[in-house]
Amino acid sequence: MSGRRLAILGAGAVGRSVVELAAEYGHDVVAVADSHSAAVDDDGLDAATVLERKERTGDVGETKPEAALSAGYDVLVEATPTTLGDAEPGFGHVKAALESDRHAVLANKGPVAERYADLRALERGSEGRVLFEATVGGAIPVLSTIDDYGPSHITAARGVLNGTANFVLSRMAAEGLDYEHVLAEAQDLGVAEADPTFDVEGTDAALKCVILANVLAEEGTYSLADAEVEGITNVPGSALDLAAEDGRTVRLIGEATTDGVRVGPRLVPQHDPLAVTGTRNIVQLDTTNAGRLNISGRGAGGPETATAVLSDVGRLP
Amino acid sequence: MSGRRLAILGAGAVGRSVVELAAEYGHDVVAVADSHSAAVDDDGLDAATVLERKERTGDVGETKPEAALSAGYDVLVEATPTTLGDAEPGFGHVKAALESDRHAVLANKGPVAERYADLRALERGSEGRVLFEATVGGAIPVLSTIDDYGPSHITAARGVLNGTANFVLSRMAAEGLDYEHVLAEAQDLGVAEADPTFDVEGTDAALKCVILANVLAEEGTYSLADAEVEGITNVPGSALDLAAEDGRTVRLIGEATTDGVRVGPRLVPQHDPLAVTGTRNIVQLDTTNAGRLNISGRGAGGPETATAVLSDVGRLP
Repeated sequence: MSGRRLAILGAGAVGRSVVELAAEYGHDVVAVADSHSAAVDDDGLDAATVLERKERTGDVGETKPEAALSAGYDVLVEATPTTLGDAEPGFGHVKAALESDRHAVLANKGPVAERYADLRALERGSEGRVLFEATVGGAIPVLSTIDDYGPSHITAARGVLNGTANFVLSRMAAEGLDYEHVLAEAQDLGVAEADPTFDVEGTDAALKCVILANVLAEEGTYSLADAEVEGITNVPGSALDLAAEDGRTVRLIGEATTDGVRVGPRLVPQHDPLAVTGTRNIVQLDTTNAGRLNISGRGAGGPETATAVLSDVGRLP
Repeated sequence: MSGRRLAILGAGAVGRSVVELAAEYGHDVVAVADSHSAAVDDDGLDAATVLERKERTGDVGETKPEAALSAGYDVLVEATPTTLGDAEPGFGHVKAALESDRHAVLANKGPVAERYADLRALERGSEGRVLFEATVGGAIPVLSTIDDYGPSHITAARGVLNGTANFVLSRMAAEGLDYEHVLAEAQDLGVAEADPTFDVEGTDAALKCVILANVLAEEGTYSLADAEVEGITNVPGSALDLAAEDGRTVRLIGEATTDGVRVGPRLVPQHDPLAVTGTRNIVQLDTTNAGRLNISGRGAGGPETATAVLSDVGRLP
């Protein structure tokens, strides 16, 4: 497949990495927008110039963000922050792409988790397609594998899908420390955000599992409100000690089946594939004819997630 | 993608499983051949009838095997036994498909490991495409992942790619038994063949690594003769005991990079992702921008390998 012209909405870690890596994958960047500006050039932007300007001034360009949607792009990359409920403004960006018969690739979980049926309805009315590998498990090729196997040949998807929560549980087990202590350490290291609620309450893992459930159900209509979610904030250090005496540990496990979504702390054997350590993620797929697949890798990070975005761009028809 | 008409060459475990599962994936089977007969019907064969006849009489049909190549198929599935050197008759079957502008999907490692450049040259002159996920790691989606990432973004592929050798090493380590003893046990269980040379000498793992090296080099011209191969027949039980004292174990590890192919017994940490147990396989991909991916699953078996074949059929343009 020859190179595509990309319009990249969102200039956080993922958006910036897509800008940086696009040329390596043979694509041109014709627009980049952050929340208050845009750089647009239908002949192709210079990535280094845009990124340097963003670094220096905080803005990617001089025009209004909306200008990016008017660029001559083939693929819209939606990498603005995940929002819940109506999933705006991300949903509107994807809608604009599809209504003009162009493709959309999402790193933003909101539209896929909260408005999946709306998204698919827009796609059915469009020449464009929607892909969103980057929304689940960062660099891990989970959605493409489900697509290749066929969703009807996967009976369940489960795994560790939040690196921050996994880092905290791994450290608690390894060092015998309490949740609050390890969380503070993770915040110092930049692994946990100043407000870690989304990660430690299980919301982020739940959004990913809702997306998996929607994909497995093919015409899924799950949203966050349908998920049973419990975070790790009430896991005492003593629970990890007790688990260790029994050769087990605790992980925040999310599971999606065609029956729905559950996320919560679970006991797993210490050397089980699910017991990944640190910020790594893992996804297990139970298949109808080929047993269980385990896929593990980096579940977050700018270049890692951008790699998933660019793999999707390569898979577009 | 709508259903395809498949001609399936080879009626061993993999070929028979493709016949059995094709309808579940929406495809028709128009021809099946074993080494001395064929069943052909351009309106579609009944899978149960063909398989029952094969079971009862040893033959899939009443016509000559060559008749399968004249069927009205869209995709030729090459599942005859792997042969080395000129890789015939498998190579000739794939050639016939491509020269008539039809697709070929291989489970047979021979043509991809021994005649990769010839295969790609035929493909360039054809409207048909060649895919071969089933040749490496059974159900594990390794080649599709490399394809999605782009071969130039993978710096190395390594792993445990032979279930028989891994079963033997796992049992030697777990039970403190010698190679000969465990091999005999594996033969009784049907895990090892009566002549296990191909598996225990490392040849099978080397063929898979040669295929990986060819894919990573894009225009690769590696063949088995280029691989450095050492099997497990000289691994003493005492080596596994010594390794265990140090928290390690021994696995038959194959590695492919753009520099070539090496296969041999290696020390790995006991709980390393590479230390899969029993007949499971694992592939590690080192990527340029997204760290390391681990993908593990069933590396052999009829339905497992057929799943890889049918995933390839689904990926065809």
